[in-house]
Amino acid sequence: MTDTMTEFDSILEALHQAIEKTDAAAAIKTLQQADHDETAKLIDRLSAEDRQALFGLLTPEQGAEVLERVYYFQGADIIEELSAEVAAPFVAELDSDDRADLMNELDQADSEAILEELDEDLAHETRRFMAYPDGTAGAIMYSEFVSFQADMTVEEILNDIQTNRKKYIEFGVQYAYVLSQDKQLLGVLPVRNLLFASRSQQASEIMIPNPTTVHAYDTIEELEDIFEEHNYLGLPVINKDGCLIGIIDRESTTEALQEAATEDLLKFQGLMGKEELRSMPLKVRSGRRLSWLSINVVLNLISASVIAMHQDTLEAVIALAVFLPIISDMSGCSGNQAVAVSMRELSLELISPKEFRRVFFKESSVGLINGACLGLLIGGLAWLWKGNAVLGLVVGTALALNTTVAVCVGGLVPLALKACRQDPALASGPILTTVTDMCGFMLILGLASLCLPYLV
Amino acid sequence: MTDTMTEFDSILEALHQAIEKTDAAAAIKTLQQADHDETAKLIDRLSAEDRQALFGLLTPEQGAEVLERVYYFQGADIIEELSAEVAAPFVAELDSDDRADLMNELDQADSEAILEELDEDLAHETRRFMAYPDGTAGAIMYSEFVSFQADMTVEEILNDIQTNRKKYIEFGVQYAYVLSQDKQLLGVLPVRNLLFASRSQQASEIMIPNPTTVHAYDTIEELEDIFEEHNYLGLPVINKDGCLIGIIDRESTTEALQEAATEDLLKFQGLMGKEELRSMPLKVRSGRRLSWLSINVVLNLISASVIAMHQDTLEAVIALAVFLPIISDMSGCSGNQAVAVSMRELSLELISPKEFRRVFFKESSVGLINGACLGLLIGGLAWLWKGNAVLGLVVGTALALNTTVAVCVGGLVPLALKACRQDPALASGPILTTVTDMCGFMLILGLASLCLPYLV
Repeated sequence: MTDTMTEFDSILEALHQAIEKTDAAAAIKTLQQADHDETAKLIDRLSAEDRQALFGLLTPEQGAEVLERVYYFQGADIIEELSAEVAAPFVAELDSDDRADLMNELDQADSEAILEELDEDLAHETRRFMAYPDGTAGAIMYSEFVSFQADMTVEEILNDIQTNRKKYIEFGVQYAYVLSQDKQLLGVLPVRNLLFASRSQQASEIMIPNPTTVHAYDTIEELEDIFEEHNYLGLPVINKDGCLIGIIDRESTTEALQEAATEDLLKFQGLMGKEELRSMPLKVRSGRRLSWLSINVVLNLISASVIAMHQDTLEAVIALAVFLPIISDMSGCSGNQAVAVSMRELSLELISPKEFRRVFFKESSVGLINGACLGLLIGGLAWLWKGNAVLGLVVGTALALNTTVAVCVGGLVPLALKACRQDPALASGPILTTVTDMCGFMLILGLASLCLPYLV
Repeated sequence: MTDTMTEFDSILEALHQAIEKTDAAAAIKTLQQADHDETAKLIDRLSAEDRQALFGLLTPEQGAEVLERVYYFQGADIIEELSAEVAAPFVAELDSDDRADLMNELDQADSEAILEELDEDLAHETRRFMAYPDGTAGAIMYSEFVSFQADMTVEEILNDIQTNRKKYIEFGVQYAYVLSQDKQLLGVLPVRNLLFASRSQQASEIMIPNPTTVHAYDTIEELEDIFEEHNYLGLPVINKDGCLIGIIDRESTTEALQEAATEDLLKFQGLMGKEELRSMPLKVRSGRRLSWLSINVVLNLISASVIAMHQDTLEAVIALAVFLPIISDMSGCSGNQAVAVSMRELSLELISPKEFRRVFFKESSVGLINGACLGLLIGGLAWLWKGNAVLGLVVGTALALNTTVAVCVGGLVPLALKACRQDPALASGPILTTVTDMCGFMLILGLASLCLPYLV
C-alpha cells in the first residue's frame, strides 16, 4: 500500500514539475507511465490551473486520449475550465459517443460555445447524438463504422481496407456493414469472412443477411437482453427508413447499465444523481447538495406542522415527544424496504407497473405482521417506562398502523411513479418519508388526544 | 402492453394445465415458448407446489436449463423446495460457476444434503468453487475449458476436437489453452488459429505465449480493469503453481459487478443485501425485514433516550418538540450525501481509506456552509413562528452545528469501515443516523436548557 502511494506521489510530483516547466515531452512521458485508474487520480489531484496548463501542452490527439482515460465527469470539468477555442480541438478528436456524452455534461452555454468552434458537419452530427435521451441506444452508439456497397467485390473491399487501414484500425473493427445504394442496411460482414471468400464474390454474397438491428430509441435494457441471448460484440442501429446510423458495442451497453445503477444509488442518497468529487470547487459541491436539501426542508416543515398542531396534547403528555422520532424513523425504514422490493421487481420485469392489487395484497400482509411486532415491542417498552398501559397502547397502535401504511405506500409508490413515467429512484424516498411522517405524527398525537384523560 | 399481458397469461395458463395433467411434453413445449424474462416471471407466478410438480416432470438437462434461465435466487428457492435426492441431478447438470453460486444461496443444511448426493469428484469440485468469496475471480470462474498438451500436433488437436465436438460446443469455446506436462498454463490458442496452421505444427508453435492471467482471489474490479484495457472475451485463472484452474468470461464479470451494485442499493435500503421477491413465503419476507429492523429499533432507542433525559426542558419549551424530527431528518440527509461521495470516491479509487485528513478538510468546509444556510433558514422560521429570537438562535445553532458534525462523520465513516475491512454500504447509514440523532438531540435540548430563562 505504502509503495503504491509513494509511486503515485512521485508520478504526481513529476507531472507537477513538467507543467511548471511547460515541458510537453516530460508531461506526456509521465502521463504514459500512469494506467487508467492512476490517470483519473492524477487529474483529480491537480489544481484547476495545473489542469489548464497541462492541456495547453498537449496536442489534440494527446488531450483526447487523456479525456477518454478519465471518468466522463472529470473530462467535462476539464473542458469547462478551458476556453471554447482551446477546448474544441480536443473535443473534435473524441469518438462520436464520447463526444456527445461529454458535451451533455457541460452547461448549455459552454456546449453551445464549443459547437460554434467545431466544423459544421461535426457540429451537426454532435447535436444529433446529443439529442438522444440517456438510457437509449442513441446515447451510446457511435458513428465510426466501416460499410461497403452490396455490389462491391471482395477485391474492391480488400483494396479499400488497405487504403484506409490506419483509420479502420482505430475503429477496432470486427464487423463491416453492407449497405444498399440508399444506405439501407442489408447485412453484416464479419471481416474474417473476407479471408475465406473468392476475390470476385460480391459483398452481398458473403454477408449475413437480415441481421439483428436496434433503433436509436430502444432502451439499454433491451440491448442488454439481446447481448445476453446472443454472443454479438456489436449491434447495428437503424433509423425508421432502415438506414444504418450507428453501432452499439457490448461494452458501452454494460457501462451504461452500471452507470444507471450508480445514479440510482446517488439519487436515493439525496445527491440528485449528479456526480460530486471532492476535487470540485467548494461552491459547486455545497450548492448542489443544498439544492436537494431544500426540497427536504419543505417536506420536513410540512410533516412538522402536524406536530405543531398538536402542541396541547404534547404539552400534557411530554413522554410522547420521545416517540415522535422513533415513529418517523422506524416507519421510514419499513417503507423503504418495500420501495426496494418494488424497484427490484420492476427492474427485473417480474411485475408490471399496473399490478397494484398484487403489490398491495402482498405488502399489506407483511405490513400488518411487522407492524404488530414493532408495535408490541415499542408499545410494551412505553408501558414499562412510564407504567401507563394506555400510553403503551397509544404508542404501539400508532406504530403498528403507521408501519402498515408505510409498507403499503412504499410498495405502491414506485409502481405509481413508473406508471406516470417518472423516475421511481428519485422521488420514491421523499414521497414515502413525508407521507409516513405526517401520518405517523397524526396517529400518535391524535390517538393520544382521544385518550388524554388516561394519559395525564 | 395488454397484448403481452394476455400472451403471458395464456402461457402461464398452459403451463398450469400441463402441470395439472402431469403432461411433461406439454410443459416443456410451453417453457420453450417463453424467453428468459418470461421464464423468470412464470417461475415467479407458479405456486411452490406447482414448481415442485413441474420439476418432477423435467429431465435433469431440462431442469438445469430452466435453472440457468431464471434469476439465481429463484433457482435457489426452487432447489430448496425439492428434496436433496430430487434436486441433486439438476444441480449436477449446471455449469460449475452456476452450480457454486446456487449452492451458496442455499441454507447450509440444504447444500450439505445435496453435496452428499453428488458423485464424489463433482462434490469435491463444487466445494472448492463454493469456497471462493463473493466478488473474487474464483466465485465467477468455471472449469469447463478445452486444453491441450504443448507437444500435441494440430492433426491430433483437430482429431480430439472432432471426437469431443458435442461437449466442446456446449462450452462455447473461443480459446483453447495449452498446458505443460504438469498442467501449467503455457499459452492461449485462439481456435481459429488451427485453420491457418500446418497439420504437423505443435500447439506450442501456434499459441500466444505468456498470456494475461489472473488469480482466483483477484477481485472482480481488477478483472473489469483488464477487460476494459483489452478486447479479451475470456481470461485464464491460474493457481500459485501456474496451473490452469478455471476460466473467467467478460460477461460473468459484468454481471457480477452489476449484482454488487444492486446489493449496495439493497443494503442502503435496509434489506441487508438479501434478495426478496413477493413470490417468496410471507414468513421469509416478513422475517428478513424484521431482522434488519430490529437493529434499527435498538439504535432508535439509544437516540430517543437522549430526549427522555431532557424531558424537563422539553416540557418547559414544548415548541422544541416540533424541531426534533426536523433536526434528525435534515442532518441525516446532509450526512448521507457525504457518505455517498465517499463511497463513490472509494469505488473509483480516487481516495484511499487512509486519506482521513483530506476528507475531513473537504467535508468540514461544506458542512459549515450548508450548516450555516440551513441553520439560518430553520432558526429564522422558529423565530418568526414563536416571535422569540432566542428560540430561533437555539434551533438554528443546533442545526448548524449538527449539520457540520453529520457531514464530517458521513464523509469519514465509509473510510473508517473500509480501513477496518468492513462493508461501508451496510453499516455507514445506521452508524451515521445514530450519531447524528444523538448529537442533534443533545445540542438542541442542551442549548435550550442553558437558555431556559429566555425561552419560557
